Amino acid sequence: MTDCWIEGVDDSGYGLDHLPLGVGWFGTQPRAVTRVGDRVLPVGDVVDDQRFEQPVLNDFLAAGPTAWRETRGRIRDHLTDRRSARALPSVDEIVLGLPVRVGDYVDFYSSLHHATNLGKIFRPDGEALLPNWRHLPVAYHGRSGTIVPSGTRVLRPSGLIRREGEVEEGTTSAGRAPDDSPLPHRPWSLVRAPSAALDFELEVGFVVGRGNDAGDPIEPDAAAEHVFGVVLVNDWSARDIQSFEYQPLGPFLGKSFATTMSVWITPLDALADVFVDGPEQEPPPDARLATAKPWGLDVELGATLNGTRITTTNLRHAYWTFAQQLAHMTSNGAGSRPGDLFATGTISGPEPHERGSLIELAWNGSEPVRLDDGSERTWLEDGDTVALTASARSAAGERIELGPAVGTVRGGHR
Amino acid sequence: MTDCWIEGVDDSGYGLDHLPLGVGWFGTQPRAVTRVGDRVLPVGDVVDDQRFEQPVLNDFLAAGPTAWRETRGRIRDHLTDRRSARALPSVDEIVLGLPVRVGDYVDFYSSLHHATNLGKIFRPDGEALLPNWRHLPVAYHGRSGTIVPSGTRVLRPSGLIRREGEVEEGTTSAGRAPDDSPLPHRPWSLVRAPSAALDFELEVGFVVGRGNDAGDPIEPDAAAEHVFGVVLVNDWSARDIQSFEYQPLGPFLGKSFATTMSVWITPLDALADVFVDGPEQEPPPDARLATAKPWGLDVELGATLNGTRITTTNLRHAYWTFAQQLAHMTSNGAGSRPGDLFATGTISGPEPHERGSLIELAWNGSEPVRLDDGSERTWLEDGDTVALTASARSAAGERIELGPAVGTVRGGHR
Repeated sequence: MTDCWIEGVDDSGYGLDHLPLGVGWFGTQPRAVTRVGDRVLPVGDVVDDQRFEQPVLNDFLAAGPTAWRETRGRIRDHLTDRRSARALPSVDEIVLGLPVRVGDYVDFYSSLHHATNLGKIFRPDGEALLPNWRHLPVAYHGRSGTIVPSGTRVLRPSGLIRREGEVEEGTTSAGRAPDDSPLPHRPWSLVRAPSAALDFELEVGFVVGRGNDAGDPIEPDAAAEHVFGVVLVNDWSARDIQSFEYQPLGPFLGKSFATTMSVWITPLDALADVFVDGPEQEPPPDARLATAKPWGLDVELGATLNGTRITTTNLRHAYWTFAQQLAHMTSNGAGSRPGDLFATGTISGPEPHERGSLIELAWNGSEPVRLDDGSERTWLEDGDTVALTASARSAAGERIELGPAVGTVRGGHR
Repeated sequence: MTDCWIEGVDDSGYGLDHLPLGVGWFGTQPRAVTRVGDRVLPVGDVVDDQRFEQPVLNDFLAAGPTAWRETRGRIRDHLTDRRSARALPSVDEIVLGLPVRVGDYVDFYSSLHHATNLGKIFRPDGEALLPNWRHLPVAYHGRSGTIVPSGTRVLRPSGLIRREGEVEEGTTSAGRAPDDSPLPHRPWSLVRAPSAALDFELEVGFVVGRGNDAGDPIEPDAAAEHVFGVVLVNDWSARDIQSFEYQPLGPFLGKSFATTMSVWITPLDALADVFVDGPEQEPPPDARLATAKPWGLDVELGATLNGTRITTTNLRHAYWTFAQQLAHMTSNGAGSRPGDLFATGTISGPEPHERGSLIELAWNGSEPVRLDDGSERTWLEDGDTVALTASARSAAGERIELGPAVGTVRGGHR
């Protein structure tokens, strides 16, 4: 199918239509690399440029789409020129780190089905969607310093957790609501404990290549001039820590302990054939968020828990497209920088098996998920491994494998 | 009073007990500098170290308290050794930039009086404080990429703003609540417009020097081993943009357009004499947040608007101390990095003239603030200049001037 001089590339997920970028560590020397089949090619072997010999890709990403495409073309030429043929290291021999230094990390909340599911769980008697949800892509800033590369173990966080019912022995001195609490007058107490409601979130992240200056917002239809590529993101969430802390400023410690990002960035150019119309939006977005081009992406997403496939969904279910997210994020005049990461929020589809988090799959603990080994989960246990995967197909039929984003939960810190 | 070879240092706010650090640009050459009186001394003239010849102080800050103190001692020795006497550049001749590359920026909400005032304004019929407020220091992550140094003009942001009442001409197509909205059935519409409720927030920021590793939380009483110093922070806020967007994930575009930080960092060591007990906390904080040392800071804070002093308050009013904030931020196992910035949130005192934001001073538009030129403000107008200032006194009676953090509002971006 291809005339690549590396064997076994066809339909490996890493063919010549893909060419993801990462940073591999050759001893203490970081080098930009691409993956072809199960082999790793240092980009600096193809293009002699110091930007490919650094610990992160930020400087190259800043160069913009013309440079990205030219480099991609040169790598492709190199891989089809049999005079370049030689043995390349296996992907298993190379340690890959975070591909970028993330400046700001923004996490959206852009799946209609996810937001509706959470609304039904938390506000069973109210409207599932809050009044702003259909008018703008709701988002918050996450902690960029705790983004870890796929494969990093994830420490179960501890925090202050509210328990309903009579005050127990061993609760913190911070217990009990004051008598004039506006909440229903049920007794409750606080305990500091390891999270007992640890969850994953299946998300897709977009890596900014060329940023924008303050005061010069990005038009939604210009997104491809700014976004370099796509990663998978697991926005690990401690639901019990989050639920007590989040009013009125949003999630903080319930999410800031770790966020897993894949080590490979799939260039947007590799996904050129899978752009589709996003879902119909009602009401239609205002002029600053309206798009003329199709910005949905037909990318199949999945998650496994200890090897059991627990969800299969699709990025095209995102209600707000990444082009609208980027436009929104800069619409107030905020600048963005090369290496900034923004993620979709949990992607859930309309069907129960398409839910992108355990809180949805197990409906807040009431419908346990059964794994292939016969065990059941409502939340993640120590030792559990969550792997997020994704794939798309190019027009030529080549499979493109994104991610993965893998993490194993381990017992608490001190 | 001092035997410094620079004239006019005594009680200038920048004496030998202060020695703030910043980064001055000598043409295209960045150099770490300190300020003494109205003069600027490059640290590299005292200590030959490449860490003082970089565009940011992060590498020096990472070195930890022993290195910080040793450098401080050497600068002091240099300034009292008359053989070193020479002409130094005036502070007015040097451009100062951001002193650090901020990794993560966290903004707390730690003033009891501020949180109570906002609760009264937004929930007049409910409990002013939410149930979590006295149990943990509420916070959110801000946008580190839009932190600007003092003196940078601040663009008035535009955004989607909800207006109550019948739908007006020119509103976006996103208008009107659905008929099944859970909100009171008043008509409302959305307009995209420049913020008409632009505010400042008087805050103090803490710059992390030595960070912590993931899974190894910082004990509150160890804060001084990790925090290098103190800056002033203006967390500019567009109240109208924020109020529509913030549920359920917290403020986003209403704050992410700009945050002003002073160009000088006052080392914590310069404030050694003004540590005081924080306010009594009821209920007492749990073990992870409890402190044995006094972590309050007796630092007078002020703000002027176009030269009129509009508030005077004190950092000691902060209910949660910076030691508790840092402990909380890392209590879930999150790591922190040199250059991370965390801020107190608006500091308001108990009296009306001690309120640290316009929304409080003008009580959400109902009690305009009168300026010396006879004009009135409920919110900031284009051309308005807000200057945050702060001062403390060393045990020897020397005045220490922190900040300032100054910004002028200018009309909207495109």
